[in-house]
Amino acid sequence: MAAAATGSGDASGRPDDTIRAEELLLDERRSIDNIDAALVHLLAERFRHTQRVGVLKATHGLPPADPSREQDQIRRLRSLADEAGLDPVFAEAFLRFIVTEVIRHHERLRDEEPTER
Amino acid sequence: MAAAATGSGDASGRPDDTIRAEELLLDERRSIDNIDAALVHLLAERFRHTQRVGVLKATHGLPPADPSREQDQIRRLRSLADEAGLDPVFAEAFLRFIVTEVIRHHERLRDEEPTER
Repeated sequence: MAAAATGSGDASGRPDDTIRAEELLLDERRSIDNIDAALVHLLAERFRHTQRVGVLKATHGLPPADPSREQDQIRRLRSLADEAGLDPVFAEAFLRFIVTEVIRHHERLRDEEPTER
Repeated sequence: MAAAATGSGDASGRPDDTIRAEELLLDERRSIDNIDAALVHLLAERFRHTQRVGVLKATHGLPPADPSREQDQIRRLRSLADEAGLDPVFAEAFLRFIVTEVIRHHERLRDEEPTER
């Protein structure tokens, strides 16, 4: 949008404020890419912990899912999300998304691991 | 820990190795809770950036979704996930889960923001 622009733009004929907007967009995307790399590494670490939990559960014949633990996690994450300015509904959906994957892993471990049941 | 040892268990009659397993489980869960708090804060920060991207896009009449950008992000995250020992399929599903939410935000901004289109 040529709106306020006084400038002439560049060779491609784009007005100055469009060029400026594209620069800002690239800048935001660099931050998003850094955050995504951090998220991936945290998720990798989270799965290392849940993997150990899965082995403990399989070895001791505990069920893969634990509804009361999940309720506690959801309550806590919704509250943390709220404080951080993140939509608590999204935070809950996010946790459920991860936990679904974790339970899938635990079920696989349970089916692989011979227990004394 | 008394674990393998003499194995008398506790007052509730649980064997020592079950008690030990429960302690290990609690310990892992404390780490998982810390990681989840970090994830929520990173996600909150990520949405602050995508919110700014959304405003830029709405103001300049750019489409809410950007398939070529998304392809680049997926390729990069799969590669990072692979290096970090995280299932690349899960990493991709995770990114799609977030991007779906982001696009929903962008569409809302586009519908709110008057542009000159």
